[in-house]
Amino acid sequence: MKFIAEINIMPQKALLDPQGKAVSANLKNIGLEACGNVRIGKHITMEVNANSAVEAENLVKDACEKLLINPVMEAFEINLINPPS
Amino acid sequence: MKFIAEINIMPQKALLDPQGKAVSANLKNIGLEACGNVRIGKHITMEVNANSAVEAENLVKDACEKLLINPVMEAFEINLINPPS
Repeated sequence: MKFIAEINIMPQKALLDPQGKAVSANLKNIGLEACGNVRIGKHITMEVNANSAVEAENLVKDACEKLLINPVMEAFEINLINPPS
Repeated sequence: MKFIAEINIMPQKALLDPQGKAVSANLKNIGLEACGNVRIGKHITMEVNANSAVEAENLVKDACEKLLINPVMEAFEINLINPPS
């Protein structure tokens, strides 16, 4: 079965996010004072061939830990979308 | 009220995503052949002060169109999380 995985990778909460700070400041400059506290991370989608949702999630977790994230600076969450039946 | 907005910004479907292609190739190299067709975009969270969900969504859309996205190359979707009551 072909699953689609959506992965959100965000900087750890305890860390400063300079890119987000820059965007926050610029939102104020263009008159959008109501928006703030911006944090910027990565959104990754991929297709996964697996026999079950559990297997697919393990494969995606493997991919995150081996290649996609830096555990010192980033945290990730995985959202698996079931294949259309 | 304080809303939290989650924004996903992805490269347009019609465009090549070289970063995603590089990750796809590397996933194969480390033995994760089951994963492929990777696309990489940005995930942004921000806080929005607004009186209603509609107002909050319009503010976030404004922020995207004026500052965050490049409409030629990127598409975005907004997911608004209601404030804890």
